[in-house]
Amino acid sequence: MAMTNLQDLFIHHLKDIYYAEKKLAKALPKMASKATEEPLRSAFEEHQRQTEEHVKRLEQVFEQCGQKASGTTCPAIDGIVEEGEELMKEAEKGEAMDAGLIAAAQAAEHYEIARYGTLASWAKMLDMGDAQKILHKTLEEEKQTDEKLSKLAMQQVNRKAA
Amino acid sequence: MAMTNLQDLFIHHLKDIYYAEKKLAKALPKMASKATEEPLRSAFEEHQRQTEEHVKRLEQVFEQCGQKASGTTCPAIDGIVEEGEELMKEAEKGEAMDAGLIAAAQAAEHYEIARYGTLASWAKMLDMGDAQKILHKTLEEEKQTDEKLSKLAMQQVNRKAA
Repeated sequence: MAMTNLQDLFIHHLKDIYYAEKKLAKALPKMASKATEEPLRSAFEEHQRQTEEHVKRLEQVFEQCGQKASGTTCPAIDGIVEEGEELMKEAEKGEAMDAGLIAAAQAAEHYEIARYGTLASWAKMLDMGDAQKILHKTLEEEKQTDEKLSKLAMQQVNRKAA
Repeated sequence: MAMTNLQDLFIHHLKDIYYAEKKLAKALPKMASKATEEPLRSAFEEHQRQTEEHVKRLEQVFEQCGQKASGTTCPAIDGIVEEGEELMKEAEKGEAMDAGLIAAAQAAEHYEIARYGTLASWAKMLDMGDAQKILHKTLEEEKQTDEKLSKLAMQQVNRKAA
């Protein structure tokens, strides 16, 4: 797909994050099942529900653009999820696994923070106020999830794994 | 490599970010050559020099761990760089390319922010004070680069591309 202007870039990156959110929605239940500590398992389960909500919000943005929602393969999230899968194979169940799962989840969160930050700022420049609000709302939630994971890591998991 | 404790995780993720920094050091000159606006080209060139410094700092951390510096394939950064390469093929040179290059660079920055954040917190838990300081210094620089790119995007590139 040739991209000649900001509108083209916006649609391309919208498809990219749509693919990424759907991929993460599938990966999170496995991550929850590998977590040992209760607050971490719950955090993954809660984030999985949130991720499904984020998918629906992206469908609203596609609608506002007069486009059918569809994904485009996103090698970045494929790589991030692949690293998470390797971790789940190689880390010992318990504290080490929990610390590694948090690291894997934070890599995914930061990819989403980058993409939603870009999309929200492009929506603003394109005078798409409603889309901007939706994207900004999700951006804030991804940042909150990242902070929550940092706190879980600092307070519990790391201390036990050391 | 089996990972049974936080020390194992630390070394594994150190190898991961070492590979990632070296990959980015190679990708940045191409990104600089594709940028149209002067401040963006300079930003990539400056960040390339900074990335080489980050590689050297990681070598110091390996030394502190009594390990030879070496990378391990990082599918996440491979995917992020692949997306940047696709963008450079598909976007029209000029404002659209510049906006896309910033988005690609911010995806890489956020991957690094996630990894350095994790490594710095693990170094702290492992009582590796010197390593923690080095990793934290790089973390702050990656955050500054991300903010600088956001400002460039907001102030110049997006406005022209819209």
